[in-house]
Amino acid sequence: MTELKNDRFLRALMRQPVDRTPLWIMRQAGRYLPEYRATRAKAGSFMQLCQNAELACEVTLQPLARFDLDAAILFSDILTVPDAMGLGLGFYEGEGPRFSNPVRTAADIDRLPIPDPEGELKYVMNAVRTIRHELHGRVPLIGFSGSPWTLAAYMVEGEGSREFSKAKAMMFDRPDLMERLLDKLIDSVAAYLNGQIAAGAQAVMIFDTWGGMLSPRDYLRFSLEPMQKIIAKLTREADGRRVPVVVFTKGGGQWLESMADCGADALGIDWTTDLGSARQRVGHKVALQGNMDPNVLYASTERIREEVASVLAAYGHGSGHVFNLGHGIHPGINPEHVSALVNALHELSPAYHANTN
Amino acid sequence: MTELKNDRFLRALMRQPVDRTPLWIMRQAGRYLPEYRATRAKAGSFMQLCQNAELACEVTLQPLARFDLDAAILFSDILTVPDAMGLGLGFYEGEGPRFSNPVRTAADIDRLPIPDPEGELKYVMNAVRTIRHELHGRVPLIGFSGSPWTLAAYMVEGEGSREFSKAKAMMFDRPDLMERLLDKLIDSVAAYLNGQIAAGAQAVMIFDTWGGMLSPRDYLRFSLEPMQKIIAKLTREADGRRVPVVVFTKGGGQWLESMADCGADALGIDWTTDLGSARQRVGHKVALQGNMDPNVLYASTERIREEVASVLAAYGHGSGHVFNLGHGIHPGINPEHVSALVNALHELSPAYHANTN
Repeated sequence: MTELKNDRFLRALMRQPVDRTPLWIMRQAGRYLPEYRATRAKAGSFMQLCQNAELACEVTLQPLARFDLDAAILFSDILTVPDAMGLGLGFYEGEGPRFSNPVRTAADIDRLPIPDPEGELKYVMNAVRTIRHELHGRVPLIGFSGSPWTLAAYMVEGEGSREFSKAKAMMFDRPDLMERLLDKLIDSVAAYLNGQIAAGAQAVMIFDTWGGMLSPRDYLRFSLEPMQKIIAKLTREADGRRVPVVVFTKGGGQWLESMADCGADALGIDWTTDLGSARQRVGHKVALQGNMDPNVLYASTERIREEVASVLAAYGHGSGHVFNLGHGIHPGINPEHVSALVNALHELSPAYHANTN
Repeated sequence: MTELKNDRFLRALMRQPVDRTPLWIMRQAGRYLPEYRATRAKAGSFMQLCQNAELACEVTLQPLARFDLDAAILFSDILTVPDAMGLGLGFYEGEGPRFSNPVRTAADIDRLPIPDPEGELKYVMNAVRTIRHELHGRVPLIGFSGSPWTLAAYMVEGEGSREFSKAKAMMFDRPDLMERLLDKLIDSVAAYLNGQIAAGAQAVMIFDTWGGMLSPRDYLRFSLEPMQKIIAKLTREADGRRVPVVVFTKGGGQWLESMADCGADALGIDWTTDLGSARQRVGHKVALQGNMDPNVLYASTERIREEVASVLAAYGHGSGHVFNLGHGIHPGINPEHVSALVNALHELSPAYHANTN
């Protein structure tokens, strides 16, 4: 494998000294970039873009051509796994994703296969291999999956939802069924992430988009514990290097202490939690990734710079911080504003690492 | 005024001894009740229902006829205030509320009047007077308003939104403008709530539905501080009794310590925060109201009972707890399941007050 030229991201995840705070942006390959929209149009549908390794690689690399970022992230979708389990994923204009075969009964759950990463999901592995090759060691490649709870919520509900009432109804009324579904997802996601690591992913992230809608007790049981079980099954070394795991529960700011014990190397943090107090609460157990409100990027470049300064100051001196937004970048953001963010970070962050190297 | 026959709710808000934990349910007068749907159909539109004091009173009393609840809440909408400020509120089928004149510029803000509660909002005051009269002192009547930040978010955005990006863009880019808008709303909401208290409301609640989408710093400045300023302006006694104030920031579980100092008598808590740890964190400063996940009401009556037991156990012994959901009851809930909740609470809660009277 080609030597990694920029390992700031991996070092920061391991809380090792860096020269400046590394940065990547959730959904950095996305609709806010005109070049992405062009490739997307060429591909046809969103899923066709995910399934075409060359085009998925193309869009993965686009933000790196524009901005000096410290990591690439596989272009894909968290719903590829349920799709490979036979749920029939469709994306409908102005509606978001929907499954034609949602999971509602014990029989539905028992029917679900554990997808083979190099079988039904081979297109994702191919994308990982292609991207890793085309990166030529410039920055590390992040693989990812949705969390079991987040996938289960979509699979039972059948579509996105503000409340996920059907998924919660199953959780409250038939916790045994929900756990049976989660068990299948633990195996599926672990195999999927291990497949990505074998294919070349140098770090992996678990997106727990809907964990924050649970009560503390239900979060521990139905969201965090399944993630912990996955992490225990993951290959943690590749090419002689640690493969760090990042867990991100959107809206999980109240549970950071528990999350810090789940076996992850780092936690994603959204903007509703102060990064400084988060750091205090997790101690030396994990690094932190985040946490600027994506809406700040609608503001002036001066204001963006102020907010970058404020996020850096909140985390404070030393390594263990990966700069990111607290959620995906919005399609309406002007790419110039992302440049302002990158420039501010490059200018302001070295001071936080000056005496720690 | 008629003597109040059931003051459990007011006593619990003041952390005075009660015989059992009082209960009301957010949106207890609502679409899950067939009798509500009948009155709503008779009224015409949702706003016509709000504007007709007799019909608003009718739906307010409906849940009390079915269930042994400890408080009534004015039937109205948080957007009545912006509507009275000239924004032109409309409700559109399957879309939710929308303003025809959203607020975007300094001139838009400067044009906004402070509505006279007995002028443009007299229909709300009439509803309060009618309901208070028709309650005959059976239970106390709760008045309410949206928080300034929540109203401002709707007013700038023009409609409901997952992100409220336009409102946040104003907040980030022109905090001076956002504060000018919030100042108008502080005066408007304070006058509106004082009007309701004068008309007969015996407690008031401020719904901060969108405070939880802010960073900790922005929450304190743009959401909590305006609520604090309102509370400082409120009439706190009527008929020789304290008029308690409840502040509910949905998703505000991380900020309870700050909220406990805002001058409110009680805080609303959603289900993402454990009620026992919330109680520890706020100490003796405030009572707590909540916090069962509304989705539990989709589950079996046995499961509902278990969850009631678990919420009661989390708060523990002694007064200072008003049982409620952590958000409004859903339209799809079977009213029988609400009976199961009420029965479970009546059966299980006296034990938590046995030695404290």
